[in-house]
Amino acid sequence: MDPTISSSLGLVSGQTFTFAEDEPFVLESGATLNPVTLAYETYGRLNEARSNAILVLHALSGGAHAAGLSEENGKLGWWDDCIGPGKPFDTDRFFVICSNVLGSCYGSTGPASIDPTTGQPYGLRFPVVTIGDMVRAQVALIDHLGIDRLLCAVGGSMGGMQVLEWTARHPQRIRSAIPLATTGRSSPMLIAFSEVGRQAIYADPNWQGGDYYANGHRPDAGLAIARMVGHITYLSEQSMHQKFGRRLQNKERFGYEFQTEFEVESYLRHQGLTFSRRFDANSYLYITKAMDYFDLSTPTGALAAAFADSTHVKYLVVSFTSDWLYPSYHGKEIVSALTAAGADVTYLDIQSSWGHDAFLLEVDTMTRLLGSFVDRVACEEGV
Amino acid sequence: MDPTISSSLGLVSGQTFTFAEDEPFVLESGATLNPVTLAYETYGRLNEARSNAILVLHALSGGAHAAGLSEENGKLGWWDDCIGPGKPFDTDRFFVICSNVLGSCYGSTGPASIDPTTGQPYGLRFPVVTIGDMVRAQVALIDHLGIDRLLCAVGGSMGGMQVLEWTARHPQRIRSAIPLATTGRSSPMLIAFSEVGRQAIYADPNWQGGDYYANGHRPDAGLAIARMVGHITYLSEQSMHQKFGRRLQNKERFGYEFQTEFEVESYLRHQGLTFSRRFDANSYLYITKAMDYFDLSTPTGALAAAFADSTHVKYLVVSFTSDWLYPSYHGKEIVSALTAAGADVTYLDIQSSWGHDAFLLEVDTMTRLLGSFVDRVACEEGV
Repeated sequence: MDPTISSSLGLVSGQTFTFAEDEPFVLESGATLNPVTLAYETYGRLNEARSNAILVLHALSGGAHAAGLSEENGKLGWWDDCIGPGKPFDTDRFFVICSNVLGSCYGSTGPASIDPTTGQPYGLRFPVVTIGDMVRAQVALIDHLGIDRLLCAVGGSMGGMQVLEWTARHPQRIRSAIPLATTGRSSPMLIAFSEVGRQAIYADPNWQGGDYYANGHRPDAGLAIARMVGHITYLSEQSMHQKFGRRLQNKERFGYEFQTEFEVESYLRHQGLTFSRRFDANSYLYITKAMDYFDLSTPTGALAAAFADSTHVKYLVVSFTSDWLYPSYHGKEIVSALTAAGADVTYLDIQSSWGHDAFLLEVDTMTRLLGSFVDRVACEEGV
Repeated sequence: MDPTISSSLGLVSGQTFTFAEDEPFVLESGATLNPVTLAYETYGRLNEARSNAILVLHALSGGAHAAGLSEENGKLGWWDDCIGPGKPFDTDRFFVICSNVLGSCYGSTGPASIDPTTGQPYGLRFPVVTIGDMVRAQVALIDHLGIDRLLCAVGGSMGGMQVLEWTARHPQRIRSAIPLATTGRSSPMLIAFSEVGRQAIYADPNWQGGDYYANGHRPDAGLAIARMVGHITYLSEQSMHQKFGRRLQNKERFGYEFQTEFEVESYLRHQGLTFSRRFDANSYLYITKAMDYFDLSTPTGALAAAFADSTHVKYLVVSFTSDWLYPSYHGKEIVSALTAAGADVTYLDIQSSWGHDAFLLEVDTMTRLLGSFVDRVACEEGV
């Protein structure tokens, strides 16, 4: 364990929940899965009234390890800034749950899982899943934990899609919702970037139509390219100037060669390489597909109808001025739909230069904002 | 020839100019090329005073065929909207030249050319070229055509970089300059997207370190992915909504499969595929590299010094509000540097939803703007 990394939560261990062992889990597509496992972690304790549960929802490449130091590998959770004693999602007061999504490669049922009917990894025989399927699996987890109603569901990017799906399709199970840097429907630009990443994976000869698990050669190059594209979209033009500018990588003058010249190239290659070691290419395909399909609007394009039954839910919607992947107007569309539906909405378009990643990087602003919102909701609920 | 395509210029034929046959052409890197060929086309006639020449400079994937119908393949030139009798670059009045860039695959010396020392295609043995090298080759062409001073140099994107290079490094050879949707130095975001495209080409097993010309298998998949990424960056979030929205491709409901679901996916795949048939992957590597290196600023970041000797040049600088690849502030930086240097500048930040491609797509606005600017300069010069 790296002694320089610490967390007020200390060591945490992951858990799994398996359901649909007898009755298959029917997906939106009509296909079925049987059984289904979700990996999850919890921090803090569920109170007697079972009224203090906060569900944290991760983005495309995340997992259940949101806070504390993983007992398994010593790594710090991806949102440790916000979860722990005295933090916005105060584990002395709240019971915080983070569930890995269906289709992922971090302990939940996904394309790398063994298909019980064949004894082999699913690969592309794994059925296409949607954000709705991911959330219905989480509902089963919440049932299993004995929680009737979440105090709050919170998440950014694809996590925010899940938050909106919770309030739209399971409004009676939720008291408040914090969708961050997200949208009510995936834009064509989002679909386009996802498709480029998928094409890079398909084009990798190691991909082998998805059946690469047995042969020891994974489509790392394709997945790395997909991640490089993704990483650019998570930053902003301005933050790339701040972070890299036109600085050269370990050299004082141009080499006029096809090796790395600029720091930004080195950064991207490193991000691609490390991601391809930790993530499964097929999971990347399935999860980006789930995001593509996400659309809470009616065929005429109206979003408000989706929230008709969630007017009792309190919302904190946040967008970021330099987020060009989920531009602020997407946040404003959500707010417009929610106010049209009569919901109680707080909205902030936060001035930030960090692009889409701002929901994780604007730590001071976000901790204050999330803390005061959750405190208000908790007080109203008598938690 | 497609009878539905017409041009007021009619059929045009390409030409080539070869130089550095004895003395090698020394590149910015210090490497040499010998000989160098540029493909070019001309429209209209050079007047007796040799004062009516307009040089049109193309972007990353363009070529010398800017206007009219190619005698070779019947295709319409990429800027036929602006070049021809009665058009802004009026061929009844001006002598318009479009030169293919060094490093390209459209008739000029590039990595697919035969290396005279080996009798084999250069491949990655072709030296890295810069925007400065491209422009110095064009200077040789202009010399060859007997033109002492261009009335105007005009181009968008990488074409705009060449325009700025002309005014910064060869100010005595130019009377006016129109850099469109461009920058005085490539941004880290631009470098990042280029690097992703290059990595996609490197990752294609058919690339073979650049030596694929002989074996008949080209790195089409890698080049197609590079082009798909590029295409997204040429559009805007808004124009993708207008152009595609979330419309499905030839289906009424989701297929929940990894085939194309959305129109935008189909569009990108088609763009990638057709591009890989018409362009050379190694040229893509070299030309994007040239763009990466482009930087007219001093080590302290100041641009104005670059234009110190071009205060006699009249400038029309244009940016587009939805261009996020070359955001408007890059145009404003150019204008700020030019005004600091004391140059005569007209600047427009054109309201457009078409993103970077707006310089080609906002036809009405652009034809009026370019026409009146060039007319003013021509009148001042007595053309």
